Amino acid sequence: MAGLVSPHGGRGLRPLQVPTGELAEERRRAQSLPQVRITSREKGDLIMLGIGGFTPLEGFMGRDDWLRVCESLRTAQGLFWPIPITLSTDDDSVKLGAEVALTDPADGAPLATMKVTEKYTVDKARECGCVFRTTDPEHPGVGMVLQQQSVNLAGPVRVLSDGGFKAKYGALFMTPAETRAKFERLGWSRVAAFQTRNPMHRSHEYLAKVAIEVCDGVLVHSLLGHLKAGDIPAEVRTRAIAALIEKYFRAGTVVQAGYPLDMRYAGPREALLHALFRQNYGCSHLIVGRDHAGVGNYYGPFDAHRIFDEIPQEALEIRPLKMGVTFWCYRCGDMASSRTCPHGEADQLQVSGTQLRKWLAEGHPVPPEFSRPEVLEILRAYYARS
Amino acid sequence: MAGLVSPHGGRGLRPLQVPTGELAEERRRAQSLPQVRITSREKGDLIMLGIGGFTPLEGFMGRDDWLRVCESLRTAQGLFWPIPITLSTDDDSVKLGAEVALTDPADGAPLATMKVTEKYTVDKARECGCVFRTTDPEHPGVGMVLQQQSVNLAGPVRVLSDGGFKAKYGALFMTPAETRAKFERLGWSRVAAFQTRNPMHRSHEYLAKVAIEVCDGVLVHSLLGHLKAGDIPAEVRTRAIAALIEKYFRAGTVVQAGYPLDMRYAGPREALLHALFRQNYGCSHLIVGRDHAGVGNYYGPFDAHRIFDEIPQEALEIRPLKMGVTFWCYRCGDMASSRTCPHGEADQLQVSGTQLRKWLAEGHPVPPEFSRPEVLEILRAYYARS
Repeated sequence: MAGLVSPHGGRGLRPLQVPTGELAEERRRAQSLPQVRITSREKGDLIMLGIGGFTPLEGFMGRDDWLRVCESLRTAQGLFWPIPITLSTDDDSVKLGAEVALTDPADGAPLATMKVTEKYTVDKARECGCVFRTTDPEHPGVGMVLQQQSVNLAGPVRVLSDGGFKAKYGALFMTPAETRAKFERLGWSRVAAFQTRNPMHRSHEYLAKVAIEVCDGVLVHSLLGHLKAGDIPAEVRTRAIAALIEKYFRAGTVVQAGYPLDMRYAGPREALLHALFRQNYGCSHLIVGRDHAGVGNYYGPFDAHRIFDEIPQEALEIRPLKMGVTFWCYRCGDMASSRTCPHGEADQLQVSGTQLRKWLAEGHPVPPEFSRPEVLEILRAYYARS
Repeated sequence: MAGLVSPHGGRGLRPLQVPTGELAEERRRAQSLPQVRITSREKGDLIMLGIGGFTPLEGFMGRDDWLRVCESLRTAQGLFWPIPITLSTDDDSVKLGAEVALTDPADGAPLATMKVTEKYTVDKARECGCVFRTTDPEHPGVGMVLQQQSVNLAGPVRVLSDGGFKAKYGALFMTPAETRAKFERLGWSRVAAFQTRNPMHRSHEYLAKVAIEVCDGVLVHSLLGHLKAGDIPAEVRTRAIAALIEKYFRAGTVVQAGYPLDMRYAGPREALLHALFRQNYGCSHLIVGRDHAGVGNYYGPFDAHRIFDEIPQEALEIRPLKMGVTFWCYRCGDMASSRTCPHGEADQLQVSGTQLRKWLAEGHPVPPEFSRPEVLEILRAYYARS
């Protein structure tokens, strides 16, 4: 029997969470250290480091790693990595070689301890040009980099907390070790990850079902961190997805879970990061559709397909399942895609997010070919409240 | 760019067709040789040897190859091969070491010359038990073996003809070199073969479209040799398939072609042969659905999936795309499969071949969720004539 893909780097999962037995002691120690309050994006990265999602990183990156990752998608040691994982501060009092406590952006609770092995400044325009292919401050990912503080701190981290994700999302918040154990119990080895930051309508259901046809099962993996303003909150999205899975998928073909990152909207580069950490979660494939992890018109609709052909084959073990734009076609009388449907746009039901939000907010009917009634009911209730 | 899969054996295509420049001379020579009239099944195998579909075989198998292929799916030299490719005769006058001409079962025209390197008898029950998993003479493949003559002749062949397939089927009859050249022109490297001995209804369209979603394209590959009595003739089937492709597939995603073999109905073993020769045609994947190459109730519905897990990984480069039973589901409101649809049989439109033939013969309407009107029209015209 084939087993699951190896974690990235090939040497097992590397969760940076402090073992339970040492946790009380390390928490006490954290209280005595200089406190560095981190941002939401940095917290997401930190929790991923803690649960092993960013295996085999040991902490936040130093300057050499930052530069090589930006320019050539490799750390200084040659590990494939598509987006810098960095931490910044304006606090001049943090000393090189010091231990610090990293604290929660919302409530200041200690999240980790870190030994500061390097302090450095970065050329933000250079980072943005490489990672986002733009320096436009309107791009939300660029905006996030521009708002970073003046000095980056690098060093290994010891993570003290899951950042509250388990309390908030319960069984939905699974670590890579947990998804791997689950896949093994299910007897899966070919597992496709479906990345989502939205509720799932029929076009998304179709993508997941195509993957189920050719794999052992699908991990429907929702972003639980922060999004752009106006997006639907994770607790609503994940309930709508659960309703869809219950009514329209076979038991034993889907695992639903969530991960703690914020969106960067880095398009192709973020598609690579999405693939990399899904490999850590045990997935052999990542569904990559139209404008994966994109925003606005910054990326071509299939740039995120192409980038997988531009990296060396051995960079990642996980493979993309490249798929087209998906929709209901009235002439096919079926769900279809830009790869399979020969008919024109007039026959293809495509509904923009803006249009859907308007319909839902106004109580307007939504075609059943676009979304399942069980999903629409949950979204309608949310829009009625908000 | 990734290229096409290698032909089986890893050393290029090996068509055994006599080069054009030597053809007239070899045909003349064939007339002077003892004539051995072969059967329809043997003719299909011979034409496949001629066009390189059975690369890297050099002719009909000897006893060691026969035995090892039956018992361990390998030739005496260790080449993976799932079904013996043999020739039989009752003609005692054929001498060991002689050259003979192999002639067409229908008109006696010379098809090939062969040097007889071995004459041997086989244990037919043993062959059938291994290859068909049954010795029941009602099984059409077993019946074919039982009707073979008393002595098998082995030896290398030089093929003189395409057996009339090109004249009968025109551009549809493509050699492995031709499909490979076509795939390369289309820029394909991931190519799924869809094996068919039937017209394509929506369940087959769905299988092919799932493959198109995850590959560069599909080879719809119809058997052009003989079938059981009562099956629809190749010229009708292939016209119905062409109509479907024209109306419901995107240009540039499908190549339609045919191959010269008769069906053996050997289920799992034949699925392996189907995979092997599709690798020679340049395909990286073979769609394997329910009861692939099966007949009656001789094989479990997914035995042909399992056999791909039972052979060593390196036996073939081509991979199975294992798919479930496919159908229209009224509750999904969509094409679906036993892998993706959670609803019950009452919601799933499944039409047996017998039922469909009855409907078509009687002019009864067929649900549009089962088959496209353009396909039904061609089948109705055939049943009205026959």
